[in-house]
Amino acid sequence: MANRTVQPTSPESHRARPEGAAPDPAAVFDWVDRRAELRARAGLTRRPRPRPAVDPLLDLASNDYLGLVRHPRVVRAAADAALRWGAGATGSRLVTGTTELHTELEEELAAFCGAEAALVFSSGYAANLAALTALTGPGTLIVADAYNHASLIDGCRLSRAEVAPVGHRDPDAVRAALAGRDGGRALVVTDSVFSVDGDAAPLAELAGACRAHGAALLVDDAHGLGVVGDGGAGALAAAGLAGSPDVVATVTLSKSLGSQGGAVLGPRRVVRHLVETARTFIFDTGLAPASVGAALGALRLLREEPERAARAREVARRLSAGLTAAGLEASVPDAAVVSVRAPSPEAAVAWARACREAGVAVGCFRPPSVPDRFSRLRLTARGDLTDARIEQAVAVVARCAPRADAPHPVAGN
Amino acid sequence: MANRTVQPTSPESHRARPEGAAPDPAAVFDWVDRRAELRARAGLTRRPRPRPAVDPLLDLASNDYLGLVRHPRVVRAAADAALRWGAGATGSRLVTGTTELHTELEEELAAFCGAEAALVFSSGYAANLAALTALTGPGTLIVADAYNHASLIDGCRLSRAEVAPVGHRDPDAVRAALAGRDGGRALVVTDSVFSVDGDAAPLAELAGACRAHGAALLVDDAHGLGVVGDGGAGALAAAGLAGSPDVVATVTLSKSLGSQGGAVLGPRRVVRHLVETARTFIFDTGLAPASVGAALGALRLLREEPERAARAREVARRLSAGLTAAGLEASVPDAAVVSVRAPSPEAAVAWARACREAGVAVGCFRPPSVPDRFSRLRLTARGDLTDARIEQAVAVVARCAPRADAPHPVAGN
Ligand SMILES: Cc1ncc(COP(=O)(O)O)c(C=O)c1O
Ligand SMILES: Cc1ncc(COP(=O)(O)O)c(C=O)c1O
Repeated sequence: MANRTVQPTSPESHRARPEGAAPDPAAVFDWVDRRAELRARAGLTRRPRPRPAVDPLLDLASNDYLGLVRHPRVVRAAADAALRWGAGATGSRLVTGTTELHTELEEELAAFCGAEAALVFSSGYAANLAALTALTGPGTLIVADAYNHASLIDGCRLSRAEVAPVGHRDPDAVRAALAGRDGGRALVVTDSVFSVDGDAAPLAELAGACRAHGAALLVDDAHGLGVVGDGGAGALAAAGLAGSPDVVATVTLSKSLGSQGGAVLGPRRVVRHLVETARTFIFDTGLAPASVGAALGALRLLREEPERAARAREVARRLSAGLTAAGLEASVPDAAVVSVRAPSPEAAVAWARACREAGVAVGCFRPPSVPDRFSRLRLTARGDLTDARIEQAVAVVARCAPRADAPHPVAGN
Repeated sequence: MANRTVQPTSPESHRARPEGAAPDPAAVFDWVDRRAELRARAGLTRRPRPRPAVDPLLDLASNDYLGLVRHPRVVRAAADAALRWGAGATGSRLVTGTTELHTELEEELAAFCGAEAALVFSSGYAANLAALTALTGPGTLIVADAYNHASLIDGCRLSRAEVAPVGHRDPDAVRAALAGRDGGRALVVTDSVFSVDGDAAPLAELAGACRAHGAALLVDDAHGLGVVGDGGAGALAAAGLAGSPDVVATVTLSKSLGSQGGAVLGPRRVVRHLVETARTFIFDTGLAPASVGAALGALRLLREEPERAARAREVARRLSAGLTAAGLEASVPDAAVVSVRAPSPEAAVAWARACREAGVAVGCFRPPSVPDRFSRLRLTARGDLTDARIEQAVAVVARCAPRADAPHPVAGN
């Protein structure tokens, strides 16, 4: 694409054409190549890298925090659910897309997290869109942490509520935004554990701010469920907020539970409201039985082996400590994610590539996948990593790091 | 919920509280019960109805158009994929969430539909959000059929483009909207087969309008893939538009392919653009391997047994003819969906319930799940229905129909 000739067509070109000549349909998407060219120049080209079924790399890039994605019981639960319930849910949840298996997962998930009720969606993304659009709307206020996940930001946009972005992890700013509103309903929304750097939101303080001002709190616990709290019961449980009548959580089934899907957890009345009004619930096909079964299998396993959660946090702390000791700018993990600052997008790409060549897969996050303009490596702890693997990972990431005195391009960073 | 005491709290109540008293957190979601009460009064209460694994009902409610959701080869493909690739994709597509199985599905799906390239998403909903937000934006125009699916409407909202809604299936209105724009890029967007009534969009005419005005065309072929066109190759193939450089399609894997997920199909440059810019691609976990495997299995089966597509259309025509002959207001199907007008939401619910008690599951669509204010039954043809089953279905639906002279409430209709 980089050596494709960029056409001088402007978006208006079809209007400048000679009288009577039809515009060239092949030129309709020329603008797409011009954008690709700009991204390439900024070092922001991206391509999926298909994995083989058996991958020799040490995985520190996935969100499989508990190492359950290939656990025999979890994959067996997925396979059994497909064989017993069919390959798909067959329709939207209110038509034919709710099986008894969906209900079972909803009940066990709610009980596990200490919530009154749960509602399962086809993805965590869809769960976030649902919660935001159904709980807010024109005339209401959303107070949102500036580093919130893209799906929360999209939910805010879709909701048509007034959105007040506040600084990252800043309860004072939240209080000020709530105090300044002119009377309508308000919802404060935050990630529990922020996806890129793995730092935690001050949930107890945020809940206090909400209570002082009659606002509701929505917490995206995608990276908390299974990792944070006793036995992985999540960030609300850890903060003593599980079961609160004014707090709603969203989770994904795609990270520590090793499956796909998402859920909204909260008061029963809120879940009923979502059933009847949330567009990504009503107009989306139900989650596939295999994914429902896998999430149930993982949840049951975690209930039997609650120490998995603490081990994931322990692995993350060790990774961070090792990388810091090696002189790198590593984040201090509140859950299972550690990030390491890179000097530029190009340096981040080169660093991740070098790690990969040395046998370790790490995430490489560049704009627009970072909340600020800084590229980083993102490493995820897995509860099933041995100490030897942790040492290997630290050694490889440190050895492959860009030399501090090396000249490097700064575009985009 | 209906007999819960409705509190006289206004949204502003927390401001009117006595000096110093904290608002009651238990009251934060009281407004949700008041909304439920309003819906209940309008006959619009909805509850999921969990299905057992073995359901004795004759299913005319799902979107399993080819009867593949429990086909041994399809469920086996789902199970095998989970066992071989893991229960989840483990991360977003650009990090660890692309397996070679995803790529395989993308290649076979593109080839099947005659598109240059395809990109798989976790749902059809996510695919629609991606296509709309990545291909339009502020300063561009979207011309949208008024009956488009909710996911397309949400995509329009998220895009921040200017949206010009046009009448249902009205190419003249599309031409006028395109001619009236002031120079920027434009995208015309439509369902190929409208989800509620099963009527087809005039794709060739829409493409002509686009070409005359230098606009791109986006077609949601959720209900066309597997049903419409030779061997189920979809509505673009049927209209001679497959592979066009100015046309993009979205599909779901959750209807005729019996799985879960969605895809965007189109020129390779467009797919690359989505990879690098579409938020529901970049920030969403990849589709679970079991669902990828099931869709691949169904696609291969359909390639071997292309007559399944024509049979689904044939079943729909017979259903419609039978219902019309019985004096009901049935739609004339362009694909596998037939709808029958009901006099009110309450009558639709009672009608669907009566059918269910007589052994036939039909969809009951009420506001907000209908494009206009009319409630209907929605019947879906399945290619695997025998003639006897079709007759049974027609007889039951006709027998359970509300008597034309019966008084009925009209609220909401
Ligand atoms: C914080 C957060 N919320 C929501 C999501 C979306 O969840 P899913 O991938 O299951 O759609 C993600 C990541 O994918 C996330 O990191
Ligand atoms: C026309 C149309 N487009 C998109 C979708 C969404 O697809 P999915 O359910 O796979 O998310 C649906 C139905 O669910 C639909 O009917």
